[in-house]
Amino acid sequence: MIIVMNRGASEESISSVCERLEKEGFIIHLSRGVERTIIGAVGDKTRIDRSNLEALPGVEKIVSILQPYKLAGRDFRQEDTVITIGDVEIGGNQVQVFAGPCAVESWEQLIESARAVKEAGAKILRGGAFKPRTSPYAFQGLEEKGLQLLAKAREETGLLITTEVMDPRSIEIIAHYSDILQVGARNMQNFFLLKELAKIEKPILLKRGLSSTIEEWLMAAEYLMAGGNNQVILCERGIRTFETYTRNTLDISAVPIVKQLSHLPVIVDPSHGTGKWQLVRPMSQASIAAGADGLMIEVHPNPSEALCDGPQSLTPENFTVLMEDMRKMARIMGKTL
Amino acid sequence: MIIVMNRGASEESISSVCERLEKEGFIIHLSRGVERTIIGAVGDKTRIDRSNLEALPGVEKIVSILQPYKLAGRDFRQEDTVITIGDVEIGGNQVQVFAGPCAVESWEQLIESARAVKEAGAKILRGGAFKPRTSPYAFQGLEEKGLQLLAKAREETGLLITTEVMDPRSIEIIAHYSDILQVGARNMQNFFLLKELAKIEKPILLKRGLSSTIEEWLMAAEYLMAGGNNQVILCERGIRTFETYTRNTLDISAVPIVKQLSHLPVIVDPSHGTGKWQLVRPMSQASIAAGADGLMIEVHPNPSEALCDGPQSLTPENFTVLMEDMRKMARIMGKTL
Amino acid sequence: MIIVMNRGASEESISSVCERLEKEGFIIHLSRGVERTIIGAVGDKTRIDRSNLEALPGVEKIVSILQPYKLAGRDFRQEDTVITIGDVEIGGNQVQVFAGPCAVESWEQLIESARAVKEAGAKILRGGAFKPRTSPYAFQGLEEKGLQLLAKAREETGLLITTEVMDPRSIEIIAHYSDILQVGARNMQNFFLLKELAKIEKPILLKRGLSSTIEEWLMAAEYLMAGGNNQVILCERGIRTFETYTRNTLDISAVPIVKQLSHLPVIVDPSHGTGKWQLVRPMSQASIAAGADGLMIEVHPNPSEALCDGPQSLTPENFTVLMEDMRKMARIMGKTL
Amino acid sequence: MIIVMNRGASEESISSVCERLEKEGFIIHLSRGVERTIIGAVGDKTRIDRSNLEALPGVEKIVSILQPYKLAGRDFRQEDTVITIGDVEIGGNQVQVFAGPCAVESWEQLIESARAVKEAGAKILRGGAFKPRTSPYAFQGLEEKGLQLLAKAREETGLLITTEVMDPRSIEIIAHYSDILQVGARNMQNFFLLKELAKIEKPILLKRGLSSTIEEWLMAAEYLMAGGNNQVILCERGIRTFETYTRNTLDISAVPIVKQLSHLPVIVDPSHGTGKWQLVRPMSQASIAAGADGLMIEVHPNPSEALCDGPQSLTPENFTVLMEDMRKMARIMGKTL
Repeated sequence: MIIVMNRGASEESISSVCERLEKEGFIIHLSRGVERTIIGAVGDKTRIDRSNLEALPGVEKIVSILQPYKLAGRDFRQEDTVITIGDVEIGGNQVQVFAGPCAVESWEQLIESARAVKEAGAKILRGGAFKPRTSPYAFQGLEEKGLQLLAKAREETGLLITTEVMDPRSIEIIAHYSDILQVGARNMQNFFLLKELAKIEKPILLKRGLSSTIEEWLMAAEYLMAGGNNQVILCERGIRTFETYTRNTLDISAVPIVKQLSHLPVIVDPSHGTGKWQLVRPMSQASIAAGADGLMIEVHPNPSEALCDGPQSLTPENFTVLMEDMRKMARIMGKTL
Repeated sequence: MIIVMNRGASEESISSVCERLEKEGFIIHLSRGVERTIIGAVGDKTRIDRSNLEALPGVEKIVSILQPYKLAGRDFRQEDTVITIGDVEIGGNQVQVFAGPCAVESWEQLIESARAVKEAGAKILRGGAFKPRTSPYAFQGLEEKGLQLLAKAREETGLLITTEVMDPRSIEIIAHYSDILQVGARNMQNFFLLKELAKIEKPILLKRGLSSTIEEWLMAAEYLMAGGNNQVILCERGIRTFETYTRNTLDISAVPIVKQLSHLPVIVDPSHGTGKWQLVRPMSQASIAAGADGLMIEVHPNPSEALCDGPQSLTPENFTVLMEDMRKMARIMGKTL
Repeated sequence: MIIVMNRGASEESISSVCERLEKEGFIIHLSRGVERTIIGAVGDKTRIDRSNLEALPGVEKIVSILQPYKLAGRDFRQEDTVITIGDVEIGGNQVQVFAGPCAVESWEQLIESARAVKEAGAKILRGGAFKPRTSPYAFQGLEEKGLQLLAKAREETGLLITTEVMDPRSIEIIAHYSDILQVGARNMQNFFLLKELAKIEKPILLKRGLSSTIEEWLMAAEYLMAGGNNQVILCERGIRTFETYTRNTLDISAVPIVKQLSHLPVIVDPSHGTGKWQLVRPMSQASIAAGADGLMIEVHPNPSEALCDGPQSLTPENFTVLMEDMRKMARIMGKTL
Repeated sequence: MIIVMNRGASEESISSVCERLEKEGFIIHLSRGVERTIIGAVGDKTRIDRSNLEALPGVEKIVSILQPYKLAGRDFRQEDTVITIGDVEIGGNQVQVFAGPCAVESWEQLIESARAVKEAGAKILRGGAFKPRTSPYAFQGLEEKGLQLLAKAREETGLLITTEVMDPRSIEIIAHYSDILQVGARNMQNFFLLKELAKIEKPILLKRGLSSTIEEWLMAAEYLMAGGNNQVILCERGIRTFETYTRNTLDISAVPIVKQLSHLPVIVDPSHGTGKWQLVRPMSQASIAAGADGLMIEVHPNPSEALCDGPQSLTPENFTVLMEDMRKMARIMGKTL
């Protein structure tokens, strides 16, 4: 940690910062420049709240040197984390596609989607039972009934299932039915939810928040890991920018960055990331080409009748074409699908 | 609602959109332009999910005409909502200042802050018992112990108290101790939390999300109101932009905009909005000058020892000066403090 | 164009808007809803300034239906524009790589870069002679001397050359030396520059502005085309967002979007788009996979000695590897390189 | 400057960075931490391009300690810069209002606006003769004819005049007619324009770019000052964010920040900053309350007939009311108007 003192900070201020740091166990390196004094503090940053130091008299700014996350970082673990559920591996050599409808609406809609997903070669079915909606007047999901339908679809197709959890009180029931629990973008910093999810023994798919930096995203993963759950899958799903043509701006550069900073698997959701089904195929290709470990794709048997997110859903036919393309793309990346 | 059809959309697509709209109870106005056909749909938009229409063949885009919120809007209620707790009015002619430490740390720290707040003339004490922290290794709050200290400080000073709620499971206990319950920026779209808070009979202070549009913010208020709780206070606390000099960019224009679109009271938090105590005074002045109904200010007896948000906290002395300035500013706005 | 009137707009306001529109040659469709009246105006929007209508009494908002660009749009020209210079085609079946140093620094540096670029298989040499720099104290380019070195490098290698133009007064001389003229992100809306470039007969590479929407970018292309220059190559180079890990956020979704909305070729600059050489390769792959017509890559014989943008420049060795990868990627996209 | 080395950077890399820095005249302070080595470099940062260092082997990141601007900074000049033109002072105790139409359209429109501006008590008339327009089909200004009308209006009213310059080739003629030359948001980093404007002896009003950080804005001022023109007035005019309700997000916090970092005067343009005339009054009040040295306000005798920016223009009546309010606001800030 580097503490930059104000121009003309008094000797008293400088000593007082140094004393404080030494009290916290840091080793101090003092650099006196022509204009400013700079204090280098070597030690474990997690032991002090950097913002307190900023409030000390004479301090201009604090610069962190080490990353604030530990368990989620490459420094902690060099090799890639591979999450294994039955014969499905996430983060390894296999590109995994999570596909299915935005929301579970009925048995017919779900099973038709599930069969299409299965036939096209994907191994994980997605579907929302509890839905976060901007409007209180929009469809909020089938709740437990939806979970039961998902479980039944798993039984019929052999697909793994993943569904979103939004409320700490629903973790138990969702964990009962689902193979993977998904934390949505709006809940990426719902710390109480994360702390509870840290205690269960199922993988967590952690979506990046709408306006979260990569560092904040990895810190949310750190909440899960610090609490005991190392099975974290990261999912880039678009960030909020000034551009209004797309629902969000899909930040594909997050894929190679996360691969560099962290050992956790990272997938991309081009359906939410763009909000337009016509962009799903090119952005899926781009994601795999950038090194993503998988994709999350919305598929609906009849997008124009969908109770949610119709415009970004693929038909089963389009999904089949997409899977063909992804197979080729996986191959030149040295992976399989 | 306006449905813009693609250039060259077939007659079949056009009729199919019209039929769908009529089925949903809309009245249709068809405009055939040289290049595109446009369908005007008059009726209650809350009855249809606009995104489904976007997925119909031939549809290029949907344009909403009416605001998606009802109860939170000025159209629904012309006069300003004034929330009354004892002799404190929020949203009326009195500028209200919510002040106190970021987090409750100890009885001494809290009561010293509370006395300073009281002496300077503010009527509402803020203080966090449950704290949302980016890092799992940072101080997470005193939890129920903190609530008890807040209640004790209310007893000693007569100040009202407000504190943050982050978890549906803590609503009952927080509502037991606190006069106003605060929803933080990260939870603005935690819809399960909002639905539960809609059922209680205490005012809710709803902070704007880091990257929430004003419309989404009012929709979050709509969740509370649609569920039965009309006592909503909005709080602008800065949005996330590309500028890194400040912690957030305080969007003061949100104040007159909310006043125009909604009847709800709106206050401003320049402490979080800027992250720097030196900016708190000018931005407080600007907020009142823009028409804000109040302010939320972090005050700490010793900012450099604070367990959270020290750099943006005022000392009791600086807070007293700020209150003097606010009194003058309130006066020229035709209000009191 | 749709004009949405205020709730309770008077009959007088409504007629006055209609009259104004009719005067401008629009055909009017009136829809009276329960809450609001909506006026559809069919005709040529380019003939009226939409913002004036917004200032008429009773008008709440104006919604555009047609795209504001004509010549740059797919509606105007269905087939892809292919720009041909000698045997080099941009926008066709060949993926084109523009490569070279950020700035021309010396003959040795330039020719070494150019040879590396040539050997690796690229056909266009980039290099800045006039450099836009945030600081007045940074290296500003070799100016005409740099242009002469570029021309000499073309002679020796047979590569085409492209360089940036920032000032209308330098167009003539730059057009004299360079095969393609580049407009940088900071000048995308330098309308005087665009108007002058519209008059020359060389292709223009138009970078997307730091915070330009795709529509504004296409409108900048429209300036060139409306003035007579149809040889426009668009270049996505990253937009400004809240994320600070990368220099910019490379918006790869812009590639398929531009391909949909426009017939112009679009390339991607992952060097500026990320600011980090380690991200150049994965983002180049992603760009080609998303359908880009080419890439712009910074290559420097000795990045740590570069006078500008060293951290985002590839060494000749790394560039050679990248070109190998791009060849494979082009192949599965049905293109050549 | 602080150079943070990679975890496990070799001794060779460390020495090579140190040598490079010493060669450039820096004094070196080495701190060896458990995980990383940090190199403090004391000296004149303007002498080295920081980005080259980032490209050296083993370097993880560079952290600047000193601000990159010199002449524009408070460190260089402690007291406020006051710009004096005749009896008008900008940056001193007088709040200055620059007002007038977006574009000069005709003599009648201009003189009517000018008289209204004058009567309401403002001293500086604004009006565009050369207009930057997103669309090539929109009104582009009366050009020299417009300048002549402005000069004639000055003669009739005694107001100072300010108008925008967009092209280095027009500087001479605009400087001939205008008292203050304005650089628009889109040209804030048009460095060739800035370099030429640095050579003239008239004050420059420098608008903040749409997505410029405060540091980049001060660096643009530095271009003017480094070239010899110290008469720089900064103008905050809104930044681009995700919020679409307003045309831009007016960043009022930029006012106290600039006052802290720089000695230059800073004014605010709430007309462009919001795009809506209804927001101009509250945001003007907020600007003065935050410490702004003045305002730039669009006034048009008939906003709905304006050839540009009608919706954000005040009528003369509304402007008169605004000036009354500003007078009161100036008074409590200890200033006059």
